[in-house]
Amino acid sequence: MRPTPRVETFPANTPAVSQIFTTVLSQGPLTRLEVARRAGLSPAAVTKAVRPLIEAGYLVEDAAEEARPALGRPANPVRVDGGRALFIGVKVTGGELIGVLTDLCCRIRVARHVPLTDRTTEAVLPHLTELVHQLLAEAEDLGTPVLGLGVAVSGDVDRAEGVVRYSPFLDWRDVPFAELAAMTTGLPVTVENDVRALTVAEQWFGAGVGLSDFAVVTVGTGIGCGLVVHGRVIEGAHGVAGEIGHVTVDPAGPPCHCGNRGCVEAIAGEAAILRRIRETTGADVTDTAQAVELAHRGAAGAREAYARAGEAIGRGIATVANLLGPERVIISGEGLAAYDLFAEQIRGAFAAAAFGSAAQCDVQTRPLPFEEWARGAAATAIQSFITPDDPHPSR
Amino acid sequence: MRPTPRVETFPANTPAVSQIFTTVLSQGPLTRLEVARRAGLSPAAVTKAVRPLIEAGYLVEDAAEEARPALGRPANPVRVDGGRALFIGVKVTGGELIGVLTDLCCRIRVARHVPLTDRTTEAVLPHLTELVHQLLAEAEDLGTPVLGLGVAVSGDVDRAEGVVRYSPFLDWRDVPFAELAAMTTGLPVTVENDVRALTVAEQWFGAGVGLSDFAVVTVGTGIGCGLVVHGRVIEGAHGVAGEIGHVTVDPAGPPCHCGNRGCVEAIAGEAAILRRIRETTGADVTDTAQAVELAHRGAAGAREAYARAGEAIGRGIATVANLLGPERVIISGEGLAAYDLFAEQIRGAFAAAAFGSAAQCDVQTRPLPFEEWARGAAATAIQSFITPDDPHPSR
Ligand SMILES: [Zn+2]
Ligand SMILES: [Zn+2]
Repeated sequence: MRPTPRVETFPANTPAVSQIFTTVLSQGPLTRLEVARRAGLSPAAVTKAVRPLIEAGYLVEDAAEEARPALGRPANPVRVDGGRALFIGVKVTGGELIGVLTDLCCRIRVARHVPLTDRTTEAVLPHLTELVHQLLAEAEDLGTPVLGLGVAVSGDVDRAEGVVRYSPFLDWRDVPFAELAAMTTGLPVTVENDVRALTVAEQWFGAGVGLSDFAVVTVGTGIGCGLVVHGRVIEGAHGVAGEIGHVTVDPAGPPCHCGNRGCVEAIAGEAAILRRIRETTGADVTDTAQAVELAHRGAAGAREAYARAGEAIGRGIATVANLLGPERVIISGEGLAAYDLFAEQIRGAFAAAAFGSAAQCDVQTRPLPFEEWARGAAATAIQSFITPDDPHPSR
Repeated sequence: MRPTPRVETFPANTPAVSQIFTTVLSQGPLTRLEVARRAGLSPAAVTKAVRPLIEAGYLVEDAAEEARPALGRPANPVRVDGGRALFIGVKVTGGELIGVLTDLCCRIRVARHVPLTDRTTEAVLPHLTELVHQLLAEAEDLGTPVLGLGVAVSGDVDRAEGVVRYSPFLDWRDVPFAELAAMTTGLPVTVENDVRALTVAEQWFGAGVGLSDFAVVTVGTGIGCGLVVHGRVIEGAHGVAGEIGHVTVDPAGPPCHCGNRGCVEAIAGEAAILRRIRETTGADVTDTAQAVELAHRGAAGAREAYARAGEAIGRGIATVANLLGPERVIISGEGLAAYDLFAEQIRGAFAAAAFGSAAQCDVQTRPLPFEEWARGAAATAIQSFITPDDPHPSR
């Protein structure tokens, strides 16, 4: 049973309309005048753009607090009607799929987890399709159309082409996943790198709201980084960007899967920390819970492995700060579970390696469960939906 | 004798108008339709913006090749009238001031060099004022108004405030140079970091034309980097950005003036190369010409110092490519004089450390004499002039 594809499109014909909608989405309710100020556009352009968005039901005007002025533009704030449309976001990890059904304001309505035993595309696609169909059935019950699907995958993802170029963790190469998922789900599909997807969610709804330049650093199996510069997430001219995991910390350090030595990830990635603890303590630790427990019991080798990891992460963040000068760096990821074991080293190494006033960058931590990553995937679907002539989604 | 300040302002009231003008400036002559396509704006917006710019003489329409269509917008290409206004750019180095008088298209009309024996602000300001007055006299002869002065200084420069926060090379701290120079010259003054100024010139008139993401890496006394992301030069939220010179290459390497060890600049900066050659060869080399000669004569220690420098620069460039994914990296600076001694190592280290498809980045060299840096300073003055409500220039 395949749902009929929805053909509803967003009434945006210029980048300015998307920008106006995004400003209201992430910072609203706002008056038209305030939208104009924040988006750097003329009030007339905002007034003109808002009208069709209200007519189509994507924006609503809050009840008048004062009578509409006889002259000039309406003073009532406008906001996004979250219930107008639904979107689905799925984060693919090695062990499970996390799927969320969100409204147009990217609020999670339903979340579901599906375990994976096999990471091949052939195994993942049917599970993903089944998960999407379940969420579509929930949407049916809510009586609201689902207008897009976002899928977040680790690795080198070409969002414009909808292709997973290379995901080392899933061992996928050149998989046209957007096209495949569009065929099996009937939805417009956006495939994006998982860290960039999470960064979009932080930019619109999280610790990046209102900032034009910030970074999200994710600590866990890999060490990733999403970068927002001049208000937009960096994609990289050749698909690679934000590879903080492969900033060199020590050219004489442990070998990295990228072929170099002493990368941040080769010291601070989950596997690297476990390996180091096994080497220095002789204990047969195989997962992070064991490693953290060992460190909390005071095992010097385990504590040292985390301290080294923290130092590597701090140096990586300083490199980002020295090159880009972000206002804020948000550290997240499942590795935060061990944060007390390396927080001090992250801050110390960052402060030592930050150049001059780059040290003023606000480095903060923010625990984000995997459902937030799925929400990020939904945010990319919303982004594709509201962007005119977006070359991104496969339909 | 102080000239009367010019109060002429540019008829741009929105960022879109500046963007349209900049597109014609860097890529013209262009038809209005082509400007609209390249600037991502509607043809109607371009037609509307172009009219007052033609009326004020900043743009001119080329002679009609065909009759104006009865309906629709004019098909003739428009271009900037370079002779409409003049600008002055000054690059401050430790040993001299380089000043250029350019037209509105940033073509150099006159260039002058003034030796400096003292780097203090008190000594530099009168020399700079004298140089500007000479160039103003030349402009008087040309009968064209000078509408702005740009000054390029190495170090941490707060362009918005017009303050040189810290220039280690000149030993300036918190100098409100824009205000000082505006008082002595009577011109609107923009002060910018020298590498960022050069990057603006490359973006508008050099190897960065038409690219939305590229980097300029300068090799010489220091190792600097200007970064263009999403079409704009990165300034850094706290004034620091592009500090490729302080990317760590080897935490056990030589000490750097920033307080860390083994930074790119601590290995590949001019002084670091000379020091290394003195240590390994015992030869008393005190300048780059001697060092290059020694290396060309085959002295192993000198060749090794340059090879190490090349490797450090290549690693620094790979870090930029892995984080930002630029389309192109342009290597320039006075250090290019020794390029044959480290070109191979730069390319080798870049290729080894670039992550995945980041290695596809086009790394090229481009010798740019110091007059080009002064031209970059003039470009920032033009940029301030054509930007509406620009908080940048002191008047
Ligand atoms: Zn690596
Ligand atoms: Zn340094």
